[in-house]
Amino acid sequence: FLHVSKVKADNLSRAHNLVTEAAGQGAKIVVLPECFNSPYGTGFFAEYAEKIPGESTLLLSEIAKENKIFLVGGSIPEEDRGKLYNTCSVFGPDGNLLIKHRKIHLFDIDVPGKIRFQESETLSPGSVLSMFDTPFCKVGVGICYDMRFAELAQIYAKKGCQLLVYPGAFNMTTGPAHWELLQRGRAVDNQVYVATASPARDEAASYVAWGHSTVVNPWGEVITKAGAQEEVVYADIDLQYLAAVRQQIPITTQRRNDLYTVSAVMDS
Amino acid sequence: FLHVSKVKADNLSRAHNLVTEAAGQGAKIVVLPECFNSPYGTGFFAEYAEKIPGESTLLLSEIAKENKIFLVGGSIPEEDRGKLYNTCSVFGPDGNLLIKHRKIHLFDIDVPGKIRFQESETLSPGSVLSMFDTPFCKVGVGICYDMRFAELAQIYAKKGCQLLVYPGAFNMTTGPAHWELLQRGRAVDNQVYVATASPARDEAASYVAWGHSTVVNPWGEVITKAGAQEEVVYADIDLQYLAAVRQQIPITTQRRNDLYTVSAVMDS
Repeated sequence: FLHVSKVKADNLSRAHNLVTEAAGQGAKIVVLPECFNSPYGTGFFAEYAEKIPGESTLLLSEIAKENKIFLVGGSIPEEDRGKLYNTCSVFGPDGNLLIKHRKIHLFDIDVPGKIRFQESETLSPGSVLSMFDTPFCKVGVGICYDMRFAELAQIYAKKGCQLLVYPGAFNMTTGPAHWELLQRGRAVDNQVYVATASPARDEAASYVAWGHSTVVNPWGEVITKAGAQEEVVYADIDLQYLAAVRQQIPITTQRRNDLYTVSAVMDS
Repeated sequence: FLHVSKVKADNLSRAHNLVTEAAGQGAKIVVLPECFNSPYGTGFFAEYAEKIPGESTLLLSEIAKENKIFLVGGSIPEEDRGKLYNTCSVFGPDGNLLIKHRKIHLFDIDVPGKIRFQESETLSPGSVLSMFDTPFCKVGVGICYDMRFAELAQIYAKKGCQLLVYPGAFNMTTGPAHWELLQRGRAVDNQVYVATASPARDEAASYVAWGHSTVVNPWGEVITKAGAQEEVVYADIDLQYLAAVRQQIPITTQRRNDLYTVSAVMDS
Protein backbone atom coordinates (compact mmCIF):
# COMPACT_ATOMS: atom_id res chain seq x y z
CA PHE A 1 0.00 0.00 0.00
CA LEU A 2 1.25 3.38 -1.07
CA HIS A 3 4.37 4.31 -2.89
CA VAL A 4 6.28 6.91 -0.86
CA SER A 5 8.53 9.35 -2.70
CA LYS A 6 10.71 12.25 -1.65
CA VAL A 7 8.05 14.76 -2.66
CA LYS A 8 5.80 15.24 0.32
CA ALA A 9 2.99 16.88 -1.66
CA ASP A 10 2.90 13.86 -3.97
CA ASN A 11 2.80 11.47 -1.02
CA LEU A 12 -0.10 13.36 0.53
CA SER A 13 -2.02 13.53 -2.69
CA ARG A 14 -1.52 9.80 -3.37
CA ALA A 15 -2.65 9.01 0.17
CA HIS A 16 -5.72 11.19 -0.37
CA ASN A 17 -6.62 9.40 -3.59
CA LEU A 18 -6.06 5.88 -2.28
CA VAL A 19 -7.96 6.43 0.95
CA THR A 20 -10.85 7.89 -1.03
CA GLU A 21 -10.74 4.86 -3.30
CA ALA A 22 -10.83 2.51 -0.28
CA ALA A 23 -13.71 4.39 1.31
CA GLY A 24 -15.54 4.26 -2.01
CA GLN A 25 -15.29 0.48 -1.84
CA GLY A 26 -16.98 0.56 1.55
CA ALA A 27 -13.98 0.50 3.91
CA LYS A 28 -14.86 1.87 7.36
CA ILE A 29 -11.35 1.73 8.82
CA VAL A 30 -8.45 2.62 6.55
CA VAL A 31 -4.78 2.21 7.46
CA LEU A 32 -1.91 4.09 5.84
CA PRO A 33 1.71 2.86 6.04
CA GLU A 34 4.45 3.91 8.42
CA CYS A 35 6.18 7.10 7.35
CA PHE A 36 3.75 7.70 4.52
CA ASN A 37 4.65 11.33 3.90
CA SER A 38 8.42 11.00 4.02
CA PRO A 39 11.12 8.61 2.88
CA TYR A 40 12.10 6.31 5.72
CA GLY A 41 15.58 7.13 7.01
CA THR A 42 17.19 8.93 9.90
CA GLY A 43 18.53 11.53 7.47
CA PHE A 44 14.99 12.45 6.36
CA PHE A 45 13.06 12.65 9.61
CA ALA A 46 14.07 16.17 10.66
CA GLU A 47 13.41 17.63 7.23
CA TYR A 48 9.95 16.07 6.85
CA ALA A 49 8.90 16.46 10.49
CA GLU A 50 5.76 18.42 11.37
CA LYS A 51 3.92 19.49 14.45
CA ILE A 52 0.61 17.73 15.07
CA PRO A 53 -1.67 19.28 13.92
CA GLY A 54 0.27 20.28 10.83
CA GLU A 55 0.07 19.98 7.06
CA SER A 56 -0.14 16.18 6.84
CA THR A 57 -2.39 15.53 9.81
CA LEU A 58 -4.77 18.37 8.94
CA LEU A 59 -5.18 16.71 5.58
CA LEU A 60 -5.75 13.31 7.23
CA SER A 61 -8.44 14.85 9.39
CA GLU A 62 -10.16 16.26 6.30
CA ILE A 63 -9.91 12.94 4.45
CA ALA A 64 -11.41 11.07 7.40
CA LYS A 65 -14.26 13.56 7.64
CA GLU A 66 -14.99 13.76 3.94
CA ASN A 67 -15.17 9.94 3.74
CA LYS A 68 -16.73 9.39 7.17
CA ILE A 69 -14.14 6.74 8.07
CA PHE A 70 -11.72 5.87 10.82
CA LEU A 71 -8.33 6.73 9.40
CA VAL A 72 -5.20 5.25 10.97
CA GLY A 73 -2.76 7.72 9.53
CA GLY A 74 0.26 5.46 9.17
CA SER A 75 2.99 7.54 10.69
CA ILE A 76 4.87 10.74 10.12
CA PRO A 77 7.98 12.20 11.69
CA GLU A 78 6.56 14.45 14.40
CA GLU A 79 8.36 17.40 15.97
CA ASP A 80 7.42 18.42 19.48
CA ARG A 81 9.46 20.65 21.76
CA GLY A 82 12.69 19.95 19.93
CA LYS A 83 12.25 16.19 19.85
CA LEU A 84 11.31 13.99 16.93
CA TYR A 85 8.94 11.02 17.15
CA ASN A 86 7.61 8.41 14.75
CA THR A 87 3.92 9.11 15.26
CA CYS A 88 0.65 7.59 14.16
CA SER A 89 -2.43 9.83 14.33
CA VAL A 90 -5.87 8.27 14.23
CA PHE A 91 -8.91 10.26 13.11
CA GLY A 92 -12.60 9.52 13.52
CA PRO A 93 -15.38 9.90 10.93
CA ASP A 94 -15.96 13.45 12.14
CA GLY A 95 -12.33 14.38 11.53
CA ASN A 96 -11.44 14.48 15.23
CA LEU A 97 -8.02 13.32 16.35
CA LEU A 98 -8.71 10.22 18.49
CA ILE A 99 -5.20 9.18 19.52
CA LYS A 100 -1.61 9.90 18.72
CA HIS A 101 0.67 6.86 19.05
CA ARG A 102 4.36 7.58 19.26
CA LYS A 103 6.39 4.48 18.37
CA ILE A 104 7.37 2.95 21.68
CA HIS A 105 10.13 0.64 20.51
CA LEU A 106 12.65 2.38 18.31
CA PHE A 107 14.04 0.36 15.46
CA ASP A 108 17.69 -0.16 16.37
CA ILE A 109 19.04 -3.27 14.73
CA ASP A 110 22.33 -4.40 13.23
CA VAL A 111 22.41 -7.54 11.12
CA PRO A 112 25.97 -7.56 9.72
CA GLY A 113 26.14 -7.42 5.95
CA LYS A 114 22.34 -7.11 5.72
CA ILE A 115 20.91 -4.11 7.50
CA ARG A 116 21.91 -1.63 10.15
CA PHE A 117 19.40 1.01 11.20
CA GLN A 118 19.30 3.12 14.34
CA GLU A 119 16.14 5.19 14.69
CA SER A 120 17.38 6.33 18.07
CA GLU A 121 20.05 8.42 16.34
CA THR A 122 17.36 11.01 15.62
CA LEU A 123 14.08 9.85 17.18
CA SER A 124 12.78 9.70 20.73
CA PRO A 125 10.45 6.90 21.84
CA GLY A 126 6.86 7.26 22.96
CA SER A 127 5.73 5.90 26.30
CA VAL A 128 2.01 5.42 25.95
CA LEU A 129 -0.02 2.43 24.82
CA SER A 130 -2.67 3.54 22.32
CA MET A 131 -6.15 2.20 21.77
CA PHE A 132 -9.26 3.70 20.23
CA ASP A 133 -12.91 2.74 20.11
CA THR A 134 -15.03 2.30 17.03
CA PRO A 135 -18.66 1.18 16.73
CA PHE A 136 -17.24 -2.13 15.44
CA CYS A 137 -14.55 -2.98 17.99
CA LYS A 138 -11.73 -1.57 20.03
CA VAL A 139 -8.45 -1.19 18.15
CA GLY A 140 -4.85 -1.27 19.42
CA VAL A 141 -2.11 0.57 17.58
CA GLY A 142 1.60 -0.09 17.24
CA ILE A 143 4.18 0.99 14.70
CA CYS A 144 6.41 -1.49 12.90
CA TYR A 145 9.10 -2.58 15.40
CA ASP A 146 6.46 -2.36 18.16
CA MET A 147 5.09 -5.57 16.63
CA ARG A 148 8.15 -7.54 17.77
CA PHE A 149 7.16 -7.04 21.38
CA ALA A 150 4.48 -9.56 22.22
CA GLU A 151 3.58 -7.80 25.47
CA LEU A 152 2.05 -4.82 23.69
CA ALA A 153 -0.35 -7.04 21.76
CA GLN A 154 -1.12 -9.10 24.84
CA ILE A 155 -2.09 -6.02 26.81
CA TYR A 156 -4.19 -4.62 23.98
CA ALA A 157 -6.04 -7.92 23.71
CA LYS A 158 -6.49 -8.10 27.47
CA LYS A 159 -8.02 -4.63 27.37
CA GLY A 160 -10.54 -5.75 24.80
CA CYS A 161 -9.01 -4.88 21.44
CA GLN A 162 -10.16 -7.27 18.74
CA LEU A 163 -8.13 -5.65 15.98
CA LEU A 164 -4.48 -4.64 16.14
CA VAL A 165 -3.06 -2.37 13.46
CA TYR A 166 0.62 -1.91 12.79
CA PRO A 167 1.66 0.54 10.11
CA GLY A 168 5.14 -0.77 9.36
CA ALA A 169 8.04 -0.76 6.97
CA PHE A 170 9.98 -3.98 7.35
CA ASN A 171 12.93 -4.35 5.01
CA MET A 172 14.35 -6.89 2.59
CA THR A 173 16.03 -8.82 5.43
CA THR A 174 13.45 -8.82 8.22
CA GLY A 175 10.51 -8.70 5.81
CA PRO A 176 10.83 -12.18 4.33
CA ALA A 177 11.99 -13.58 7.69
CA HIS A 178 9.48 -12.14 10.11
CA TRP A 179 6.79 -9.79 8.71
CA GLU A 180 4.13 -12.42 8.22
CA LEU A 181 5.28 -14.67 11.07
CA LEU A 182 4.95 -11.89 13.64
CA GLN A 183 1.49 -10.93 12.43
CA ARG A 184 0.28 -14.52 12.45
CA GLY A 185 1.84 -15.04 15.87
CA ARG A 186 0.14 -11.99 17.37
CA ALA A 187 -3.16 -13.06 15.80
CA VAL A 188 -3.14 -16.68 16.96
CA ASP A 189 -1.74 -15.98 20.44
CA ASN A 190 -4.35 -13.32 21.17
CA GLN A 191 -7.13 -14.51 18.86
CA VAL A 192 -7.50 -11.10 17.28
CA TYR A 193 -7.35 -9.64 13.79
CA VAL A 194 -4.02 -8.10 12.86
CA ALA A 195 -3.62 -5.59 10.02
CA THR A 196 -0.40 -4.11 8.71
CA ALA A 197 0.23 -1.43 6.11
CA SER A 198 3.63 -1.05 4.48
CA PRO A 199 4.95 1.44 1.96
CA ALA A 200 5.29 -0.12 -1.48
CA ARG A 201 8.71 -1.49 -2.37
CA ASP A 202 11.00 1.05 -3.99
CA GLU A 203 14.29 -0.52 -5.03
CA ALA A 204 15.72 2.96 -5.63
CA ALA A 205 15.16 4.15 -2.06
CA SER A 206 17.94 4.16 0.53
CA TYR A 207 15.72 1.94 2.71
CA VAL A 208 13.86 -0.65 0.67
CA ALA A 209 10.54 -1.56 2.29
CA TRP A 210 9.32 -5.13 2.00
CA GLY A 211 5.76 -4.12 1.12
CA HIS A 212 3.06 -6.77 1.48
CA SER A 213 0.43 -5.10 3.65
CA THR A 214 -1.47 -7.96 5.23
CA VAL A 215 -4.52 -8.84 7.28
CA VAL A 216 -4.52 -11.98 9.46
CA ASN A 217 -7.57 -13.51 11.13
CA PRO A 218 -7.83 -14.83 14.72
CA TRP A 219 -7.13 -18.38 13.51
CA GLY A 220 -3.75 -17.14 12.26
CA GLU A 221 -4.60 -17.24 8.57
CA VAL A 222 -3.57 -14.56 6.10
CA ILE A 223 -6.87 -13.38 4.66
CA THR A 224 -5.51 -10.68 2.41
CA LYS A 225 -2.07 -9.64 1.33
CA ALA A 226 -0.78 -6.97 -1.01
CA GLY A 227 2.05 -7.54 -3.43
CA ALA A 228 5.25 -5.54 -3.19
CA GLN A 229 3.85 -2.69 -5.27
CA GLU A 230 1.27 0.02 -4.56
CA GLU A 231 -2.11 -1.55 -3.96
CA VAL A 232 -5.20 -1.18 -1.77
CA VAL A 233 -6.22 -4.39 0.00
CA TYR A 234 -9.48 -5.08 1.81
CA ALA A 235 -10.60 -7.45 4.53
CA ASP A 236 -13.71 -8.00 6.61
CA ILE A 237 -13.23 -7.93 10.35
CA ASP A 238 -15.74 -10.62 11.35
CA LEU A 239 -16.35 -10.42 15.08
CA GLN A 240 -18.67 -13.40 15.04
CA TYR A 241 -15.86 -15.47 13.58
CA LEU A 242 -13.52 -14.10 16.25
CA ALA A 243 -15.98 -15.13 18.95
CA ALA A 244 -16.30 -18.60 17.40
CA VAL A 245 -12.52 -19.09 17.42
CA ARG A 246 -12.36 -18.03 21.05
CA GLN A 247 -15.09 -20.50 21.89
CA GLN A 248 -13.46 -23.37 19.99
CA ILE A 249 -9.99 -22.90 21.47
CA PRO A 250 -10.78 -20.96 24.64
CA ILE A 251 -7.27 -19.84 25.60
CA THR A 252 -8.57 -16.46 26.70
CA THR A 253 -10.46 -18.08 29.57
CA GLN A 254 -7.96 -20.91 30.11
CA ARG A 255 -4.99 -18.66 30.92
CA ARG A 256 -3.53 -19.54 34.29
CA ASN A 257 -3.77 -16.14 35.94
CA ASP A 258 -2.88 -17.86 39.18
CA LEU A 259 0.56 -18.65 37.72
CA TYR A 260 1.53 -15.73 35.48
CA THR A 261 0.44 -12.33 34.39
CA VAL A 262 1.10 -9.80 31.67
CA SER A 263 0.36 -6.29 32.77
CA ALA A 264 0.79 -2.66 31.88
CA VAL A 265 2.81 -0.85 34.51
CA MET A 266 0.41 2.10 34.43
CA ASP A 267 -2.36 -0.19 35.67
CA SER A 268 -0.52 -1.55 38.66
CA PHE B 1 9.10 -39.39 16.33
CA LEU B 2 7.81 -42.61 17.81
CA HIS B 3 4.86 -44.67 16.85
CA VAL B 4 2.64 -45.20 19.91
CA SER B 5 0.48 -48.32 20.06
CA LYS B 6 -1.89 -49.75 22.62
CA VAL B 7 0.74 -52.18 23.87
CA LYS B 8 2.68 -50.39 26.59
CA ALA B 9 5.60 -52.81 26.55
CA ASP B 10 6.04 -52.22 22.82
CA ASN B 11 5.94 -48.47 23.32
CA LEU B 12 8.60 -48.65 26.00
CA SER B 13 10.82 -50.92 23.98
CA ARG B 14 10.52 -48.72 20.89
CA ALA B 15 11.34 -45.66 22.99
CA HIS B 16 14.36 -47.46 24.40
CA ASN B 17 15.64 -48.38 20.95
CA LEU B 18 15.10 -44.96 19.42
CA VAL B 19 16.65 -43.04 22.30
CA THR B 20 19.66 -45.36 22.17
CA GLU B 21 19.89 -44.74 18.43
CA ALA B 22 19.76 -40.96 18.98
CA ALA B 23 22.41 -41.11 21.70
CA GLY B 24 24.58 -43.24 19.41
CA GLN B 25 24.45 -40.40 16.89
CA GLY B 26 25.80 -38.06 19.55
CA ALA B 27 22.59 -36.50 20.90
CA LYS B 28 23.08 -35.06 24.39
CA ILE B 29 19.46 -34.09 25.00
CA VAL B 30 16.76 -36.42 23.71
CA VAL B 31 13.04 -35.64 23.72
CA LEU B 32 10.26 -38.22 23.57
CA PRO B 33 6.70 -37.34 22.52
CA GLU B 34 3.69 -36.56 24.69
CA CYS B 35 1.93 -39.68 25.92
CA PHE B 36 4.63 -41.96 24.56
CA ASN B 37 3.64 -45.04 26.56
CA SER B 38 -0.12 -44.86 26.04
CA PRO B 39 -2.60 -44.05 23.29
CA TYR B 40 -3.77 -40.45 23.64
CA GLY B 41 -7.37 -40.27 24.79
CA THR B 42 -9.32 -39.62 27.95
CA GLY B 43 -10.52 -43.23 27.86
CA PHE B 44 -6.94 -44.54 28.06
CA PHE B 45 -5.34 -42.36 30.72
CA ALA B 46 -6.58 -44.21 33.80
CA GLU B 47 -5.66 -47.62 32.41
CA TYR B 48 -2.12 -46.62 31.42
CA ALA B 49 -1.43 -44.34 34.39
CA GLU B 50 1.52 -45.03 36.69
CA LYS B 51 3.01 -43.60 39.82
CA ILE B 52 6.30 -41.78 39.38
CA PRO B 53 8.60 -43.60 39.85
CA GLY B 54 6.93 -46.51 38.11
CA GLU B 55 7.54 -48.90 35.23
CA SER B 56 7.92 -46.30 32.48
CA THR B 57 9.89 -43.69 34.38
CA LEU B 58 12.23 -46.27 35.94
CA LEU B 59 13.03 -47.37 32.42
CA LEU B 60 13.58 -43.76 31.32
CA SER B 61 15.97 -43.28 34.20
CA GLU B 62 17.92 -46.36 33.11
CA ILE B 63 17.98 -45.26 29.48
CA ALA B 64 19.27 -41.81 30.45
CA LYS B 65 21.98 -43.34 32.61
CA GLU B 66 23.05 -46.00 30.17
CA ASN B 67 23.41 -43.39 27.41
CA LYS B 68 24.65 -40.54 29.63
CA ILE B 69 22.11 -38.13 28.19
CA PHE B 70 19.47 -35.70 29.34
CA LEU B 71 16.20 -37.42 28.58
CA VAL B 72 12.99 -35.39 28.36
CA GLY B 73 10.61 -38.25 28.80
CA GLY B 74 7.73 -36.99 26.69
CA SER B 75 4.80 -37.52 28.95
CA ILE B 76 2.84 -40.33 30.58
CA PRO B 77 -0.47 -40.42 32.39
CA GLU B 78 0.57 -40.10 36.05
CA GLU B 79 -1.49 -41.22 39.01
CA ASP B 80 -0.94 -39.48 42.32
CA ARG B 81 -3.28 -39.58 45.30
CA GLY B 82 -6.27 -40.48 43.18
CA LYS B 83 -5.69 -37.81 40.58
CA LEU B 84 -4.37 -38.19 37.05
CA TYR B 85 -1.91 -35.82 35.40
CA ASN B 86 -0.24 -35.56 32.01
CA THR B 87 3.34 -35.55 33.22
CA CYS B 88 6.77 -35.09 31.70
CA SER B 89 9.71 -36.47 33.68
CA VAL B 90 13.22 -35.30 32.85
CA PHE B 91 16.25 -37.37 33.73
CA GLY B 92 19.91 -36.42 33.87
CA PRO B 93 22.91 -38.40 32.56
CA ASP B 94 23.24 -40.09 35.93
CA GLY B 95 19.65 -41.30 35.78
CA ASN B 96 18.40 -38.86 38.41
CA LEU B 97 14.94 -37.37 38.07
CA LEU B 98 15.54 -33.64 37.52
CA ILE B 99 12.00 -32.32 37.20
CA LYS B 100 8.48 -33.53 36.78
CA HIS B 101 6.30 -31.20 34.71
CA ARG B 102 2.58 -31.70 34.98
CA LYS B 103 0.78 -30.17 32.01
CA ILE B 104 -0.44 -26.80 33.21
CA HIS B 105 -3.00 -26.06 30.51
CA LEU B 106 -5.36 -28.93 29.89
CA PHE B 107 -6.40 -29.51 26.32
CA ASP B 108 -10.08 -28.64 26.26
CA ILE B 109 -11.16 -27.58 22.79
CA ASP B 110 -14.22 -27.94 20.62
CA VAL B 111 -13.97 -27.13 16.93
CA PRO B 112 -17.38 -28.21 15.58
CA GLY B 113 -17.18 -30.92 12.95
CA LYS B 114 -13.40 -31.15 13.37
CA ILE B 115 -12.27 -32.03 16.85
CA ARG B 116 -13.60 -32.03 20.36
CA PHE B 117 -11.34 -33.11 23.19
CA GLN B 118 -11.62 -32.47 26.92
CA GLU B 119 -8.60 -33.59 28.89
CA SER B 120 -10.20 -32.13 31.99
CA GLU B 121 -12.78 -34.93 31.94
CA THR B 122 -10.14 -37.18 33.47
CA LEU B 123 -6.98 -35.16 34.11
CA SER B 124 -6.01 -32.54 36.67
CA PRO B 125 -3.70 -29.67 35.74
CA GLY B 126 -0.23 -29.01 37.16
CA SER B 127 0.59 -25.69 38.73
CA VAL B 128 4.36 -25.43 38.52
CA LEU B 129 6.62 -23.98 35.83
CA SER B 130 9.44 -26.40 35.08
CA MET B 131 13.02 -25.68 34.09
CA PHE B 132 16.21 -27.71 34.33
CA ASP B 133 19.88 -26.95 33.94
CA THR B 134 22.31 -28.68 31.64
CA PRO B 135 25.98 -27.94 31.00
CA PHE B 136 24.83 -26.50 27.66
CA CYS B 137 21.96 -24.25 28.62
CA LYS B 138 18.90 -23.94 30.79
CA VAL B 139 15.79 -25.65 29.38
CA GLY B 140 12.10 -24.84 29.87
CA VAL B 141 9.46 -27.56 29.56
CA GLY B 142 5.85 -27.46 28.50
CA ILE B 143 3.48 -30.11 27.19
CA CYS B 144 1.53 -29.64 23.96
CA TYR B 145 -1.33 -27.23 24.74
CA ASP B 146 1.01 -25.38 27.12
CA MET B 147 2.65 -24.07 23.94
CA ARG B 148 -0.43 -21.98 23.10
CA PHE B 149 0.18 -19.81 26.13
CA ALA B 150 2.87 -17.30 25.25
CA GLU B 151 3.38 -16.29 28.88
CA LEU B 152 4.96 -19.61 29.81
CA ALA B 153 7.63 -19.26 27.12
CA GLN B 154 8.17 -15.60 27.99
CA ILE B 155 8.81 -16.43 31.64
CA TYR B 156 11.13 -19.32 30.76
CA ALA B 157 13.13 -17.05 28.48
CA LYS B 158 13.21 -14.31 31.10
CA LYS B 159 14.60 -16.82 33.58
CA GLY B 160 17.41 -17.69 31.20
CA CYS B 161 16.16 -20.70 29.24
CA GLN B 162 17.67 -20.79 25.76
CA LEU B 163 15.87 -23.94 24.72
CA LEU B 164 12.17 -24.71 25.17
CA VAL B 165 10.93 -28.26 24.68
CA TYR B 166 7.32 -29.20 24.16
CA PRO B 167 6.45 -32.86 23.82
CA GLY B 168 3.11 -32.57 22.05
CA ALA B 169 0.46 -34.33 20.06
CA PHE B 170 -1.38 -31.82 17.90
CA ASN B 171 -4.06 -33.30 15.69
CA MET B 172 -5.13 -33.18 12.06
CA THR B 173 -7.00 -29.87 12.60
CA THR B 174 -4.71 -27.85 14.85
CA GLY B 175 -1.55 -29.49 13.50
CA PRO B 176 -1.58 -28.02 10.00
CA ALA B 177 -3.02 -24.74 11.33
CA HIS B 178 -0.82 -24.00 14.32
CA TRP B 179 1.89 -26.56 15.20
CA GLU B 180 4.69 -24.89 13.27
CA LEU B 181 3.36 -21.36 13.67
CA LEU B 182 3.33 -21.57 17.45
CA GLN B 183 6.85 -22.97 17.59
CA ARG B 184 8.20 -20.32 15.24
CA GLY B 185 6.35 -17.63 17.18
CA ARG B 186 7.77 -18.73 20.53
CA ALA B 187 11.23 -18.91 18.98
CA VAL B 188 11.25 -15.50 17.31
CA ASP B 189 9.49 -13.66 20.15
CA ASN B 190 11.91 -14.97 22.76
CA GLN B 191 14.94 -15.60 20.56
CA VAL B 192 15.34 -19.14 21.82
CA TYR B 193 15.47 -22.60 20.31
CA VAL B 194 12.18 -24.50 20.38
CA ALA B 195 11.96 -28.27 20.05
CA THR B 196 8.83 -30.39 19.82
CA ALA B 197 8.33 -34.14 19.74
CA SER B 198 5.11 -35.67 18.51
CA PRO B 199 3.93 -39.26 18.28
CA ALA B 200 4.00 -40.52 14.71
CA ARG B 201 0.74 -40.28 12.81
CA ASP B 202 -1.49 -43.32 13.16
CA GLU B 203 -4.60 -43.04 11.01
CA ALA B 204 -6.09 -46.01 12.84
CA ALA B 205 -5.95 -44.38 16.27
CA SER B 206 -8.95 -42.71 17.87
CA TYR B 207 -6.88 -39.52 18.13
CA VAL B 208 -4.72 -38.98 15.05
CA ALA B 209 -1.53 -37.09 15.91
CA TRP B 210 -0.15 -34.66 13.36
CA GLY B 211 3.43 -35.86 13.77
CA HIS B 212 6.20 -33.57 12.46
CA SER B 213 8.53 -33.20 15.44
CA THR B 214 10.38 -29.96 14.77
CA VAL B 215 13.25 -27.78 15.92
CA VAL B 216 13.16 -24.02 15.31
CA ASN B 217 16.10 -21.66 15.77
CA PRO B 218 16.03 -18.21 17.44
CA TRP B 219 15.61 -16.50 14.05
CA GLY B 220 12.33 -18.38 13.69
CA GLU B 221 13.54 -20.84 11.06
CA VAL B 222 12.65 -24.52 11.04
CA ILE B 223 16.04 -26.25 11.14
CA THR B 224 14.78 -29.80 11.27
CA LYS B 225 11.42 -31.43 10.88
CA ALA B 226 10.27 -35.03 10.90
CA GLY B 227 7.70 -36.40 8.52
CA ALA B 228 4.42 -37.79 9.76
CA GLN B 229 5.90 -41.24 10.37
CA GLU B 230 8.29 -42.57 13.01
CA GLU B 231 11.65 -40.91 12.67
CA VAL B 232 14.49 -39.55 14.81
CA VAL B 233 15.46 -35.98 13.97
CA TYR B 234 18.55 -34.11 15.10
CA ALA B 235 19.50 -30.46 15.52
CA ASP B 236 22.41 -28.51 16.93
CA ILE B 237 21.56 -25.98 19.59
CA ASP B 238 24.06 -23.25 18.70
CA LEU B 239 24.30 -20.80 21.57
CA GLN B 240 26.73 -18.57 19.71
CA TYR B 241 24.16 -18.20 16.97
CA LEU B 242 21.52 -17.45 19.58
CA ALA B 243 23.76 -14.74 21.05
CA ALA B 244 24.34 -13.29 17.59
CA VAL B 245 20.61 -13.08 16.87
CA ARG B 246 20.06 -11.33 20.20
CA GLN B 247 22.79 -8.85 19.36
CA GLN B 248 21.47 -8.17 15.86
CA ILE B 249 17.85 -7.62 16.91
CA PRO B 250 18.25 -6.79 20.59
CA ILE B 251 14.62 -7.08 21.70
CA THR B 252 15.69 -8.71 24.95
CA THR B 253 17.34 -5.47 26.08
CA GLN B 254 14.92 -3.16 24.26
CA ARG B 255 11.81 -4.33 26.11
CA ARG B 256 10.03 -1.44 27.80
CA ASN B 257 9.98 -2.74 31.33
CA ASP B 258 8.84 0.72 32.37
CA LEU B 259 5.59 0.13 30.46
CA TYR B 260 4.74 -3.56 30.76
CA THR B 261 5.82 -6.73 32.44
CA VAL B 262 5.33 -10.47 32.18
CA SER B 263 5.81 -12.21 35.46
CA ALA B 264 5.31 -15.46 37.30
CA VAL B 265 2.97 -15.03 40.22
CA MET B 266 5.23 -17.10 42.46
CA ASP B 267 7.95 -14.46 42.05
CA SER B 268 5.84 -11.51 43.08
